[in-house]
Amino acid sequence: MTRISIPEGSPFGLSNLPYGVFSTPGTAPRVGVRVADSVVDLAAALGDDVFARPSLNAFMAQGHGRWVEVRERLLGLLAGDVPEPAVHPAGAVRTHLPVEVGDYVDFYASEHHASNVGRLFRPDSAPLMPNWKHLPVGYHGRAGTVVVSGTDIVRPSGQRKAPSEAAPSYGPSRRLDIEAEVGFIVGTGSPLGSPVSVDDFAERVFGVVLVNDWSARDIQAWEYVPLGPFLGKSFATSISPWVVPLLALEDARVATPPQDPEPLPYLREKNPWALDLDMVVEWNGQVVSRPPYRDMYWSPAQMLAHMTVNGASTRTGDLFASGTVSGPAKDQRGAFLELTWGGKEPVEVNGETRTFLEDGDEVTVSATAPGPSGTRIGFGEVRGRVLPAV
Amino acid sequence: MTRISIPEGSPFGLSNLPYGVFSTPGTAPRVGVRVADSVVDLAAALGDDVFARPSLNAFMAQGHGRWVEVRERLLGLLAGDVPEPAVHPAGAVRTHLPVEVGDYVDFYASEHHASNVGRLFRPDSAPLMPNWKHLPVGYHGRAGTVVVSGTDIVRPSGQRKAPSEAAPSYGPSRRLDIEAEVGFIVGTGSPLGSPVSVDDFAERVFGVVLVNDWSARDIQAWEYVPLGPFLGKSFATSISPWVVPLLALEDARVATPPQDPEPLPYLREKNPWALDLDMVVEWNGQVVSRPPYRDMYWSPAQMLAHMTVNGASTRTGDLFASGTVSGPAKDQRGAFLELTWGGKEPVEVNGETRTFLEDGDEVTVSATAPGPSGTRIGFGEVRGRVLPAV
Repeated sequence: MTRISIPEGSPFGLSNLPYGVFSTPGTAPRVGVRVADSVVDLAAALGDDVFARPSLNAFMAQGHGRWVEVRERLLGLLAGDVPEPAVHPAGAVRTHLPVEVGDYVDFYASEHHASNVGRLFRPDSAPLMPNWKHLPVGYHGRAGTVVVSGTDIVRPSGQRKAPSEAAPSYGPSRRLDIEAEVGFIVGTGSPLGSPVSVDDFAERVFGVVLVNDWSARDIQAWEYVPLGPFLGKSFATSISPWVVPLLALEDARVATPPQDPEPLPYLREKNPWALDLDMVVEWNGQVVSRPPYRDMYWSPAQMLAHMTVNGASTRTGDLFASGTVSGPAKDQRGAFLELTWGGKEPVEVNGETRTFLEDGDEVTVSATAPGPSGTRIGFGEVRGRVLPAV
Repeated sequence: MTRISIPEGSPFGLSNLPYGVFSTPGTAPRVGVRVADSVVDLAAALGDDVFARPSLNAFMAQGHGRWVEVRERLLGLLAGDVPEPAVHPAGAVRTHLPVEVGDYVDFYASEHHASNVGRLFRPDSAPLMPNWKHLPVGYHGRAGTVVVSGTDIVRPSGQRKAPSEAAPSYGPSRRLDIEAEVGFIVGTGSPLGSPVSVDDFAERVFGVVLVNDWSARDIQAWEYVPLGPFLGKSFATSISPWVVPLLALEDARVATPPQDPEPLPYLREKNPWALDLDMVVEWNGQVVSRPPYRDMYWSPAQMLAHMTVNGASTRTGDLFASGTVSGPAKDQRGAFLELTWGGKEPVEVNGETRTFLEDGDEVTVSATAPGPSGTRIGFGEVRGRVLPAV
């Protein structure tokens, strides 16, 4: 038996307890919980086979009551000694995609981001479309290319056409970008024909991850009319390996920004809440941006209610993300398109000049949120390195 | 033992042999093959447990060589007597969704359809966007709401705003429509970073289904800028229950229409081919349209090559559809939006006037294609009835 010691100020203290999927040279991928610098094998520690699987889906599908119960059992377990074979050093395990993703939806919930992109992509029109303040604009992404943090990102090739060129050409993207986002994972699905009420979010959503929605801006700009982004996004979307339970984020709830005009009734929450996440974007190890999630115009509950208002079903493992998190200040922008203003205002990264991503560049998005008694809840990080086009 | 008799001219003759998933009061959902008016239980007839599953995915994942082998075994089996317990009358079984859908992508491959919709949605611009003749425009749809033919379609509610209205309102769609399409099911997936060559289509794609991509035009028109259709489509997409193997469609191959400008090299097929499908759209039992699939601008192989040119992976069960199939003539249009020109030119259906779908309406899309020796390959039908909004 062993006692897991938790240093003061650990982002993975007892108030967090995020779930993930890990393997060691001796064990197949299975569910673990991150505690300080350790990973606890839940099938071994709790003797429950629902955790001896390569994704969180079976556990999540057991529902909200079960999530509460397991969290309480974990707190009891970690207060004492844990069987030694169940404990692995976090640095010695490999993390895997934590969920089998059903559908992946990407929203566009930051007013600052949507306005900036509008100015850059459509300089001759109003930056926000007429629908933007009435509904959380979103679209479906490619679920099959959601990958776990640490997966290398091969520079995508495709059709690009600059406004100055007469015809498109094929080749590697010249404007490879990131989007720092927050993602929500549906724990218990909802049947066809049953919209999820804006007040039922916490019953349905299991937890939160960080998302880097890699974006090839030149491919996207050429392809996206009229049906939206497709190959400019579908080559890879990275998520952080540790799913922070919504149950750990009670102290991170803050009021939503004012919404004007008032949204339609199905988007009105009894107790509107946002999440007070402080995000950090590092480019080759240098901090280039600190996007504030609390300022997002549309709340997580509004996104889920909107996504299902037409009767669309949800499934365990569905992932929906906020869209790029950008604050009002330049150093709060969560995409390099905005940070460098379409490449016209380069930034300095470790003494080198950057506009978009170069081969070999590495980007890390991390975040923390307030926990109980002044602690911080860590989301870990979502990280990826750019490899040359093949 | 019993001999399955196949009437002359049956659309489900020995040259077809489509696969589906069925159940009877006594058996759980499992794989069957449709032969004339019978369904043959493949686990029972071939003694192979890969067919005793509720989807075709495990069988499809075994690959092209195996698809050929099973087809040959079936031809041998059906030439003689089949064990009686393996044979069910088609009218006595329930059909289920034949595949577990990975990602669902919807293209926009008919020039007639794209031009018509462009004129209707954007009357002040050129009907085709500048990218349309350079790449097969497409977007991701909601895989979790793909349903099998026969599933009732509840009229979706959501935000709609007519151009004459100052603000959007919430309510049931007033412009519920269909899109008659042809869908392709990926049998063997391809890894991240490995585009599928335009010449490798038949190695990867297992078969073909009919698709009705139900569309709420008022919801779509309000929401779709700038990220594309979302809730106007995601409430339901119906597919036909019998997957016609690509192996059955050798005689249905025809040349593709000329493409001008010539597409980029990754979209050039050595032997370009389209499929000669004759589609029929019935509204409450009355034929209102006969869309010709052979006229589609972009070929199935071009759609798959484009979808993966950025390195996106594919998975067994991925579904990609052609987009609405519309020919040049009015009675060849595969969406009621086009057929009634945005509701301005109503059609008569069984003596009643129709623009968009009314509650209780039923739509059936069926199709056949040329088979060997003058036979026809039947695709069966995709059917759905509209129920009132809840």
